[in-house]
Amino acid sequence: MTEFIPAGTRFHELPELAMKRGGVLRGARLAYETWGTLDPNRDNAVLILTGLSPDAHAAANATNAEPGWWEAMLGAGKPIDSNRWFVICVNALGSCKGSTGPASINPDTGEPYRLDFPELSLEDVADAAASVVASLGIERLACLIGNSMGGMAALAYLLRNPGSGRSHINISGSARALPFSIAIRSLQREAIRLDPAWSHGRYDEVHYPEAGMRMARKLGVITYRSALEWDGRFGRVRLDSDRRDDEDPFGLEFAVESYLEGHARRFVRRFDPNCYLYLSRSMDWFDMAEYAPDGGDVLAGLATLQVERALAIGVSTDILFPLQQQEQIADGLRAGGADATFLPLPSPQGHDAFLVDIARFGPAVAEFLGAVRR
Amino acid sequence: MTEFIPAGTRFHELPELAMKRGGVLRGARLAYETWGTLDPNRDNAVLILTGLSPDAHAAANATNAEPGWWEAMLGAGKPIDSNRWFVICVNALGSCKGSTGPASINPDTGEPYRLDFPELSLEDVADAAASVVASLGIERLACLIGNSMGGMAALAYLLRNPGSGRSHINISGSARALPFSIAIRSLQREAIRLDPAWSHGRYDEVHYPEAGMRMARKLGVITYRSALEWDGRFGRVRLDSDRRDDEDPFGLEFAVESYLEGHARRFVRRFDPNCYLYLSRSMDWFDMAEYAPDGGDVLAGLATLQVERALAIGVSTDILFPLQQQEQIADGLRAGGADATFLPLPSPQGHDAFLVDIARFGPAVAEFLGAVRR
Repeated sequence: MTEFIPAGTRFHELPELAMKRGGVLRGARLAYETWGTLDPNRDNAVLILTGLSPDAHAAANATNAEPGWWEAMLGAGKPIDSNRWFVICVNALGSCKGSTGPASINPDTGEPYRLDFPELSLEDVADAAASVVASLGIERLACLIGNSMGGMAALAYLLRNPGSGRSHINISGSARALPFSIAIRSLQREAIRLDPAWSHGRYDEVHYPEAGMRMARKLGVITYRSALEWDGRFGRVRLDSDRRDDEDPFGLEFAVESYLEGHARRFVRRFDPNCYLYLSRSMDWFDMAEYAPDGGDVLAGLATLQVERALAIGVSTDILFPLQQQEQIADGLRAGGADATFLPLPSPQGHDAFLVDIARFGPAVAEFLGAVRR
Repeated sequence: MTEFIPAGTRFHELPELAMKRGGVLRGARLAYETWGTLDPNRDNAVLILTGLSPDAHAAANATNAEPGWWEAMLGAGKPIDSNRWFVICVNALGSCKGSTGPASINPDTGEPYRLDFPELSLEDVADAAASVVASLGIERLACLIGNSMGGMAALAYLLRNPGSGRSHINISGSARALPFSIAIRSLQREAIRLDPAWSHGRYDEVHYPEAGMRMARKLGVITYRSALEWDGRFGRVRLDSDRRDDEDPFGLEFAVESYLEGHARRFVRRFDPNCYLYLSRSMDWFDMAEYAPDGGDVLAGLATLQVERALAIGVSTDILFPLQQQEQIADGLRAGGADATFLPLPSPQGHDAFLVDIARFGPAVAEFLGAVRR
């Protein structure tokens, strides 16, 4: 399978990884990038865990000058200041941007894993990331930052590595998936699986589930942004006639349809469908309530986590990870003894606001990190 | 094509219908049902225009004792009281529940219209409904009630038939589609069209776009209900193991997935895919701003409508026809001289609340109708 690895990506060979839901992963690796310099006493490390689709190239760095997916947030003098922090961003286990996942070669067979990849949990994603951090000689992170799926994986990281992070920023994350989000992701997975070209995961570059991936991505983009933003951005604007196919009675007509089409085209051949299925399902499965003592609730599960300071940021227009989920994270971490703050932001851009509304997210992140001791 | 016509449905043969976007429909008919008795002076008629999928059987009546889709709302002593009102409900032009649409036989060819059906607008849906009303000898409706798509068609009805309604209840409707709703519907249509069995509309019972219809329906149900309702109703409940297929690694696992699957199964063979495409597209096209004098806005378009009293009801959890759209309808009708009220309801059930939250919708409708003169 094609993998999509940014230039300059570094790799960490993982030791044998016992997966949460069973099976052992051997010979796997994790892709990561770094920014800034690790202090001699190794106390200035910041780890970023990403959403479902990004690679490890969060921003331009010494090995790759191309802008990254969080370019405005990370770098010298930026909110996550690489003059001050040694920043690590990993590509999630199970992804296809350099880390081992269902699209990678199974060393036991010499063929891609496809659906033979063991069932993936966000706990496994966290364990693999923790292995990268340990390999760099870092015992304790100054701050663990997780966005979206990475916000869930960050909670798993704190759970499986007690005392591993002095502080934590959880951005548009959740402690467990709620049924609306499960329904959306289930439908995205179904779109891929219903595409005859998916072939139970045995597609190739020629017979590829393009239609299913297109549907999944469009549904994703619809739920990543917000109706409010689109009212102002697209309204009812029509495409120019030269961009319409008048032979197709149900073809693209409105600007918003063209926007979705563009997003889908850029994505469908740049992300492996089986990896998408695995990562998507891992989000549905994750539930901090599993870790509550004595069958307690999700807050009790969160309260088992050890972190000194925490900031949970959410956005009022997010329909996929709604605001009450970030409030719950702050409440739960506070119940566990953290100095935890919940910060709701009025961004119009929905779930993806952290990628684009740097005017709101930048100062919030900078202020929190500014108070983190070195 | 199979049509799905409730027992006891009546039919009105339409005169030649000049379609808004071009073409003439000949030999078409509209399915409708009635409740109650028309007064000798014909001033107690109430017309109900439906959402996309319902038939004309809104409730049990003399010709069909089966419960209808609005059973709790319509009948003797109910909020729409058939002891007082002569109630008509029509199946929309373009649908497949007895009215002529893309699944019907084209009299010119003896074959189903399929994609040769002329482009359908909600203005055409309104014209066809008005023809039924006229055929019953009714010059002026006591009240015109429209739900969802029917709320849009009701505005078209008032537009094309000035003075045709003394009062109007618009339920979870809108004066024009916004980009989020367009995006959702566009994706539903794409799911059907991407299904190879759709065959540009030339499917049959054997080669049928079942996967596409399943996707479209599930996406519909997700946007018809609300995340809030599902949190309480489903949470993270798993299906019992005997209802799961452990051979399918991405099969149904959560109760919410099973709920969607059940809805999809009941729908996919009970609604014609081409009819779905036509009606869905007609909602995207409708825009009251087209009718504003001197290129005015949507409020100016609404202000051209003539009605004495109006009630626009919406629901705070509706993401498909959000509350500001019903407020806009009330504002616009008021600007046109109507005594118009906007009633936002805190129903947790989202867009479909009018079908299920009778505790809130029933009294609101009953109170409004109670003040309508006969």
